[in-house]
Amino acid sequence: MTAITSASDDTELSCITSRAIAIDVGGSHMRCGLVGHQGILSVFDHPISPKSRLAPLLQVLDHHVAGFARNGDCRAITLSFPGIVTRHGKVLSTPRGKFEDAPDIDLAGWAKERFGLRLVMENDARMALLGEHAAGAAQNCMDVVIVMLGTGVGSAVMIHGALLRGAHFQAGCLGGHIPARFDGRLCICGAIGCVEAEASTWALDAIARELHTDGEDNLPLPSPLDFATVFRCSAAGDSFMTEVRDHCLNVWSAGIVGLIHAYDPSVVVLGGGVMASADQIIPAVSSYIERHAFTWWGKPELRTAKLGPDAALIGAWPLLQECL
Amino acid sequence: MTAITSASDDTELSCITSRAIAIDVGGSHMRCGLVGHQGILSVFDHPISPKSRLAPLLQVLDHHVAGFARNGDCRAITLSFPGIVTRHGKVLSTPRGKFEDAPDIDLAGWAKERFGLRLVMENDARMALLGEHAAGAAQNCMDVVIVMLGTGVGSAVMIHGALLRGAHFQAGCLGGHIPARFDGRLCICGAIGCVEAEASTWALDAIARELHTDGEDNLPLPSPLDFATVFRCSAAGDSFMTEVRDHCLNVWSAGIVGLIHAYDPSVVVLGGGVMASADQIIPAVSSYIERHAFTWWGKPELRTAKLGPDAALIGAWPLLQECL
Repeated sequence: MTAITSASDDTELSCITSRAIAIDVGGSHMRCGLVGHQGILSVFDHPISPKSRLAPLLQVLDHHVAGFARNGDCRAITLSFPGIVTRHGKVLSTPRGKFEDAPDIDLAGWAKERFGLRLVMENDARMALLGEHAAGAAQNCMDVVIVMLGTGVGSAVMIHGALLRGAHFQAGCLGGHIPARFDGRLCICGAIGCVEAEASTWALDAIARELHTDGEDNLPLPSPLDFATVFRCSAAGDSFMTEVRDHCLNVWSAGIVGLIHAYDPSVVVLGGGVMASADQIIPAVSSYIERHAFTWWGKPELRTAKLGPDAALIGAWPLLQECL
Repeated sequence: MTAITSASDDTELSCITSRAIAIDVGGSHMRCGLVGHQGILSVFDHPISPKSRLAPLLQVLDHHVAGFARNGDCRAITLSFPGIVTRHGKVLSTPRGKFEDAPDIDLAGWAKERFGLRLVMENDARMALLGEHAAGAAQNCMDVVIVMLGTGVGSAVMIHGALLRGAHFQAGCLGGHIPARFDGRLCICGAIGCVEAEASTWALDAIARELHTDGEDNLPLPSPLDFATVFRCSAAGDSFMTEVRDHCLNVWSAGIVGLIHAYDPSVVVLGGGVMASADQIIPAVSSYIERHAFTWWGKPELRTAKLGPDAALIGAWPLLQECL
């Protein structure tokens, strides 16, 4: 099922001197919006199957992007992608089992040939940070780390108002892959005991099995287990789910303190689907930061992301400003 | 005992249009050198007692700095300090039990009033990185992480040729304080299971006791244990010391992979006193990086620091260039 919503009318559109088409390829949804400096003008949403490839999604996009492009005055297409990418449209790494054809697709060529537009691509967590910085939880903050708790754990970093990218486009966006347990489990990235391997949705079944030490081989749990279930059952008094929850809160907290030590932010923003349980996450992580972050100047403020899936679209505008 | 050596004669000095006085306050030694763009011209070395305060060291320095300053044409004094500092001479954090008076000393005033010179201060690992970048293991590298294995674990980061400092002067220099074990021991920084708490000289006695699980309360080991002993005994076939060594190599390796993920360097330089055993450390950490670092572009090269204690003095010149 796809849905198109519009946040603007023709009168508003006529006031805009320039717009961009923003595409966000996410874990479970792809969204494509017409955006301007004032935000999202119109958006198209399309669900993504678990093992989707990218090429069929581009076919789905074709009609909608062409429609937005026909509205005229579009400067570029931005593409937010859940992996390591170059700004000029090259996918360098993909999430496990998903979009595996992406590194072989000439995305810049697709944008140029199909729509006559320039493509600017960025990692999804960096796009979310740009959006939250422009119009969300990180407004007016120059030094920010965003951590996205979802299927995996993503991150992005802004220092002195500029995104950190590094020599090979990796800096700042592998916050889920700093160690939480040097002797822990093998992560999908190839490292050992990463925060993501010790506390994320894809690792949750293994985490629960490991914590369940009373000798039962088969846990009486839904599989795959998800964080909505963990937090709901924990809130209802389930002691084992509380143990799983507290384990993950501790891993995230230690990882976030690691990111505070690494990047020296004034604000840490937490986003992603797992933050549906922000009421249980924010107090626990805030308290841990208060007790354990080594920051001579005070403590970074922990905030919940405000824009949800819109962040990666709203980030299109500041991304293009950066490229001017 | 103090020693003065000179690497130049008057003829050489007369060719120099401008020099600086570089002070390096280290863990066990303080050094003060006259430096120019071509390197160290003359150096004064003074041992430091374990619980030394900074004010008495300034008194020791007075005579020597005045002598260097009289040689004329000095542009500034640089001060390398093992803690978090501002560039303008404010000490924000000190190593445990050492230089505890430093935050209350007006170091910029001392330099200005006593010698008529401007003071530029920097963290010791950042100074070492500037030195290694100018004339050592990181020459011609724009994206580098240095890790200093000593009493503690220090670090510094250069991205696109510029030192990473962050919003509160902390970024990059707390590489010893990213987690290695989220449920590990309390670190002196207040965080839990930091790399430094799980594998550094100050934690070595506790690490050995924890690994020694055969029930003996008193280990037949020298105390305080040091890494020279661990590496020597391990090389001689001592199985317990090999266990301690391998534990620390694993922790350092996991931490270094964390720093590779965090900062995206092309080169990682290892320095500090523990690197006297580089022959055992470099192959183990290199192999770990090869197996576990997530880097789509190849693997960062691991190198041993070349300049030893001279790095922080040689770093004076690029530090001053930065300030111009």
